[in-house]
Amino acid sequence: MSTTRKPFPKGKKSPQARGARRSYVRKAGDSEADPYIYGLHPVVHALRNPSRTHHRLLVTANALRRLAEELGSAPDALIAGLTVEEASSNQISRIAGDDAVHQGCLLYCDPLPDLGLDDLHEPQRLLLLDQVTDPHNVGAVLRSAAAFALDAVVVTTRHSPRLTAVLAKSAAGALDIVPLARVQNLSRALEDLSERGFVTIGLDASADRPLEDIALPGPFALVMGAEGKGLRQKTRDTCSTLARIDMPGRMPSLNVSNATALALYITDRNAGKG
Amino acid sequence: MSTTRKPFPKGKKSPQARGARRSYVRKAGDSEADPYIYGLHPVVHALRNPSRTHHRLLVTANALRRLAEELGSAPDALIAGLTVEEASSNQISRIAGDDAVHQGCLLYCDPLPDLGLDDLHEPQRLLLLDQVTDPHNVGAVLRSAAAFALDAVVVTTRHSPRLTAVLAKSAAGALDIVPLARVQNLSRALEDLSERGFVTIGLDASADRPLEDIALPGPFALVMGAEGKGLRQKTRDTCSTLARIDMPGRMPSLNVSNATALALYITDRNAGKG
Repeated sequence: MSTTRKPFPKGKKSPQARGARRSYVRKAGDSEADPYIYGLHPVVHALRNPSRTHHRLLVTANALRRLAEELGSAPDALIAGLTVEEASSNQISRIAGDDAVHQGCLLYCDPLPDLGLDDLHEPQRLLLLDQVTDPHNVGAVLRSAAAFALDAVVVTTRHSPRLTAVLAKSAAGALDIVPLARVQNLSRALEDLSERGFVTIGLDASADRPLEDIALPGPFALVMGAEGKGLRQKTRDTCSTLARIDMPGRMPSLNVSNATALALYITDRNAGKG
Repeated sequence: MSTTRKPFPKGKKSPQARGARRSYVRKAGDSEADPYIYGLHPVVHALRNPSRTHHRLLVTANALRRLAEELGSAPDALIAGLTVEEASSNQISRIAGDDAVHQGCLLYCDPLPDLGLDDLHEPQRLLLLDQVTDPHNVGAVLRSAAAFALDAVVVTTRHSPRLTAVLAKSAAGALDIVPLARVQNLSRALEDLSERGFVTIGLDASADRPLEDIALPGPFALVMGAEGKGLRQKTRDTCSTLARIDMPGRMPSLNVSNATALALYITDRNAGKG
């Protein structure tokens, strides 16, 4: 593998260069274009995020008090042009669905701008998902990525999770904290990262080495596969190393978001040690 | 705290002593009494579990082949009296619901017998849940508990998860591997465990000590609280120690099943070291 380092861009980029904003059309049932998010934490973090275009907040009287407490001001005082409308919990459920734990608030807002690898600024720690799509799992993964201060989570353009309100709720606000980047081809992205000096580690139960033994003196990228299927062969072949997490039980398989949390913990403890 | 040790029973107990089997009534909409489970792994592990009473298996031709492969025999050859009926995927969806990822198999079976703390045989590693109820989370927690070879997961009789097919699916078979015990009162159970020589550790973000620093020379019990609420005050007061998991991010909060996976990993690495 080449050791030439192609540096990431330094400093602020112009808004134009930060990835074109996709023109989303709002239509019923098209959840990729889901124009709202709900739940206290997702809404608080979306309101705090200046990269979001906010439109309209539906909120119960109680939830408005809690939002104002969290934000340190009324939402419409914080965001110019935001329409705040009082609504009942039932009215919000009629929009979000009966199963949605919306906690009395629903925010109409545009999706975040699409980012590619080149839009990230000097990343040091990345997480790549190889066709993990379940919105609950990806939401929980984003939350762990925020907790472990990752610089971005990278998914593929195809077979990637749809950024629905369900995913945003599971992420508990992390969607507005950790950048989510999309790449056309995961193997090519891994080669690209290797050229930039990253150690790329694929998690694989049959790997020869435990993750604890992988030296991480510099930038690294963890790669997680989908439950059941694991990493695709091409992904496996492109990682600079494969690693496993040893568990003592007779059913040594974890939910993908739990396995990711463990991998992030272990690499966090190892990072910076050669 | 008393250091008198009240030993757990050794050896096999009579079936009568292993907790009376609750007489479940099957009625529509009462999911506590949900008389079926679905999904390849849950069904395989339920069929392998001699403590289950199995009734009827609905299965597609494809799923039947996969089940037989996993079990090393046809299901009805493994279990005397089991009725196996071929069904279409749609027929199974009509019973399990459109959202259920049933993978072509649905097994009508009785719930597992109720267990109490005294039904466990010389446990060394326990996980207690303080009012964690979300079935996806509790299912994932059971799966992690199986992966880390815990002796049981303990929940309270009230405010405990309902053992629905959704929980069984998230547990991916772990419901038939890790015993699930119920106690009336969690604080009393913690006192009881302390008297039996257990270190009881409550996970709490505001604790003075990191979990990595807790010596675990003998048996231990981890206690996890519900997301948002955390441990109840009474639980906090009864644990022999509180511990936190340090994370570097600016949103240092995890999904409860992810936090549990980390806690199980850390205690597994520390166990047996005094």
